[in-house]
Amino acid sequence: MSDFRDANRYDVGVVGAGLAGLTATRELAEAGLDVVVLEARGRVGGRTVGESLSTGETIDRGAEWIGAEHDRVLALVEEFDLELSEQYGDGLDRVAVAGDLFEHEDRVQALPSESATELREAADRVESLRRDVPFETPRDAPEADTWDATTVESWKRETMETTAAREAFDAFVRAEFTVEPSEMSLLYFLTAVDAAGGLELATDSVSVTQQHRLVGGSQQLSTRLADDLEDVIAIRLNEPVRRIDRRGDDVTLASDDDTYVVSDAIVAVPPPLVERIDHEPPLPARRRGLGQRMPMGAVIKFVAAYESPFWRADGYSGSVLAADGIVAEVADGTRPNTDRGHLVGFVAGADAFEWSDRPLAERRERVLDDLERYFGTQAATPLEYVDEAWSKTQWSSGGYNAVMTPGTLTSCGDALREPVEGVHWAGSETALEGRGFMEGAIRSGERAASAVLDDAREQ
Amino acid sequence: MSDFRDANRYDVGVVGAGLAGLTATRELAEAGLDVVVLEARGRVGGRTVGESLSTGETIDRGAEWIGAEHDRVLALVEEFDLELSEQYGDGLDRVAVAGDLFEHEDRVQALPSESATELREAADRVESLRRDVPFETPRDAPEADTWDATTVESWKRETMETTAAREAFDAFVRAEFTVEPSEMSLLYFLTAVDAAGGLELATDSVSVTQQHRLVGGSQQLSTRLADDLEDVIAIRLNEPVRRIDRRGDDVTLASDDDTYVVSDAIVAVPPPLVERIDHEPPLPARRRGLGQRMPMGAVIKFVAAYESPFWRADGYSGSVLAADGIVAEVADGTRPNTDRGHLVGFVAGADAFEWSDRPLAERRERVLDDLERYFGTQAATPLEYVDEAWSKTQWSSGGYNAVMTPGTLTSCGDALREPVEGVHWAGSETALEGRGFMEGAIRSGERAASAVLDDAREQ
Repeated sequence: MSDFRDANRYDVGVVGAGLAGLTATRELAEAGLDVVVLEARGRVGGRTVGESLSTGETIDRGAEWIGAEHDRVLALVEEFDLELSEQYGDGLDRVAVAGDLFEHEDRVQALPSESATELREAADRVESLRRDVPFETPRDAPEADTWDATTVESWKRETMETTAAREAFDAFVRAEFTVEPSEMSLLYFLTAVDAAGGLELATDSVSVTQQHRLVGGSQQLSTRLADDLEDVIAIRLNEPVRRIDRRGDDVTLASDDDTYVVSDAIVAVPPPLVERIDHEPPLPARRRGLGQRMPMGAVIKFVAAYESPFWRADGYSGSVLAADGIVAEVADGTRPNTDRGHLVGFVAGADAFEWSDRPLAERRERVLDDLERYFGTQAATPLEYVDEAWSKTQWSSGGYNAVMTPGTLTSCGDALREPVEGVHWAGSETALEGRGFMEGAIRSGERAASAVLDDAREQ
Repeated sequence: MSDFRDANRYDVGVVGAGLAGLTATRELAEAGLDVVVLEARGRVGGRTVGESLSTGETIDRGAEWIGAEHDRVLALVEEFDLELSEQYGDGLDRVAVAGDLFEHEDRVQALPSESATELREAADRVESLRRDVPFETPRDAPEADTWDATTVESWKRETMETTAAREAFDAFVRAEFTVEPSEMSLLYFLTAVDAAGGLELATDSVSVTQQHRLVGGSQQLSTRLADDLEDVIAIRLNEPVRRIDRRGDDVTLASDDDTYVVSDAIVAVPPPLVERIDHEPPLPARRRGLGQRMPMGAVIKFVAAYESPFWRADGYSGSVLAADGIVAEVADGTRPNTDRGHLVGFVAGADAFEWSDRPLAERRERVLDDLERYFGTQAATPLEYVDEAWSKTQWSSGGYNAVMTPGTLTSCGDALREPVEGVHWAGSETALEGRGFMEGAIRSGERAASAVLDDAREQ
């Protein structure tokens, strides 16, 4: 390990070269600061990663959808002159719950009417509850303690009676948050719905957060940012930061290979990964508590490629919400410049824990069994099948995002964005708007960079 | 970092030199195996650590009490010819709840009768529920999913109405588990009560798990074990294990300084710390999920030393259960070979997060304010005051123990004890009996050692 005297000196050290870290880096570089980016993986992009299928289309193994109101992402798409494709939404959605397979253009209306009413009322109730939760200070909600002590599952059982409504809600929570309703605080759920801009449970067409996808894959946003920065910024891959030392006037970042002395650091990794770094002196108790109380969800994302999007011809949108197998949600993932059809879907929550450890061949068979039930025998024999079990990745250790367990927001939630002596926190989980999406990652990078620039101006 | 060719070769590598790791080491050494112990701290003992006061008595900054049925601990005490002292229990307990200060020889009877009845009925209800939870396979409980989806707080609100009963229960949960009732799964709570041998909420004397203390401090158990092993075993201090590689036939453990090749490893650290190690290949998804869903409690343990145990003369036992300040529980901690009197107590849960980050002087003042309320003005001016904020410790990152958040036991609980290709798990949290106590740590070490010996015999 390098000695202090050998250390490399930069204005700012950024930990993590995902969208949050790279956005922060760009802002800082544009302001004339000297930045080093330390990335654990051998690539940039974090939870965005593309894969080329045999026919040349790139699919997303990670984050994929861009919302209609995701301004920051859309600005980058325009800046880099990238191409968007629109999410296909025509035809019937299917909902597999309560031992039955329902279909309708609106997935809520697909349910038996009593269940549909329950689910709509539950969605209305969420909308009403979340209006009582202050956007920036959810701890100040009038019933914050009660809601934070309640699991989303307990709330569901109080709110809905029918199996179909409950199972559809389960599938929705798994698909949106990649955790079981039992794992998440109701208060955190309300803030997360708020941060996403509303509950996308009942829609008769494509969800507003799933409007677009990027032709060529989402990772391009990061690779393009990194390419642009290449001449002015050191991006060091395969250099996980092992220690952050705040004991001096400066902050020292140590990897296995080297040591960097910086005035400020931006840590742009998911909250539980912050705990994997040795912090000297130890982080504030609330911050450590948070790192242990905000687990990553569990998800396996899969893409199955077929000769054509045959379900469209059958009158189906490709959208499925399901609680009868291991797949929680399916969508039409067809890429624009191909004759092929793609189904993209998710195994999430407890099923993802179970199936992440099984061999790919078994997982493929089980997922295709589910797809066959929803789309007929053609779905059983794709030309290609790829998946990513995010819980098995060394440097995300889960996906899509970290969520707060009960009791966490009220006791440790304040620590999520609060800088600690020159160390700032970024990453989609720390965003107020667009949290959990690429949009949130970019916004969090902007916020962290501007806090660092404010600090620099004060000194 | 060392190259493989330089690696040190041992039969077994033990990570963590607390009671669990050292017990396992002794069993293995007695069976003739060659063991290396890698300890992150500069001392043995883990969550047991002694401190000498100015007058020479050693107090415990960490684990202190030994239960009447803690056979393994008592056997070690006898083997090492150590001296026990009995917990003082005469006189009146105090309970500070619902804006009042109650007193009685039995802390439940101290409460107004309606609240006392509620609390006793709640305790009976816990006893009845836990009989439905299979000891070794709690997932098989008839209502496992429902109970795991329910926070202890939600259950409390359903079960008790009066403020006094609710606050006494809160203080009890904080004192026993160092988390808020909102943070813990009801199912996990039931298994933890089971593993402790019952709910110690209602007792008219000293709790069965708090019968004895060790004269000279609990850490002696570990230092004596380590001393006995000194000649046959390498115990390497200040060597946190950074990477555990299971890719070959052997297991490789890497610290910052060295690399060790072993046939089996025993990781005897709290569950969340397992996630701080790089595992190659990544651990099973459930195991990783568990590491992110089993946070350490938060606790500040304090000892205040006075010229005499003046509360005894006033007719008080020294025992307080409180929800009116930041202190959750106080006990008489007087050491036998001194005229002095000691009060030992705990700030736990959300208050511990808040106060761990404040300066010692502020914390001292706040704690002494509470003690003055319970014991009069004499309590405000101790001769000495020491405390330990366990959330701030680099290598425990909380205390007393890790607990499971809602939804965790049913989805990831199976991973707690399940070995992963030559890597075995120990530590008090993994114990079936005596979990959360020193007794559990010892038993877990015995279990892990015997699993390794079984493996060795099979090969």
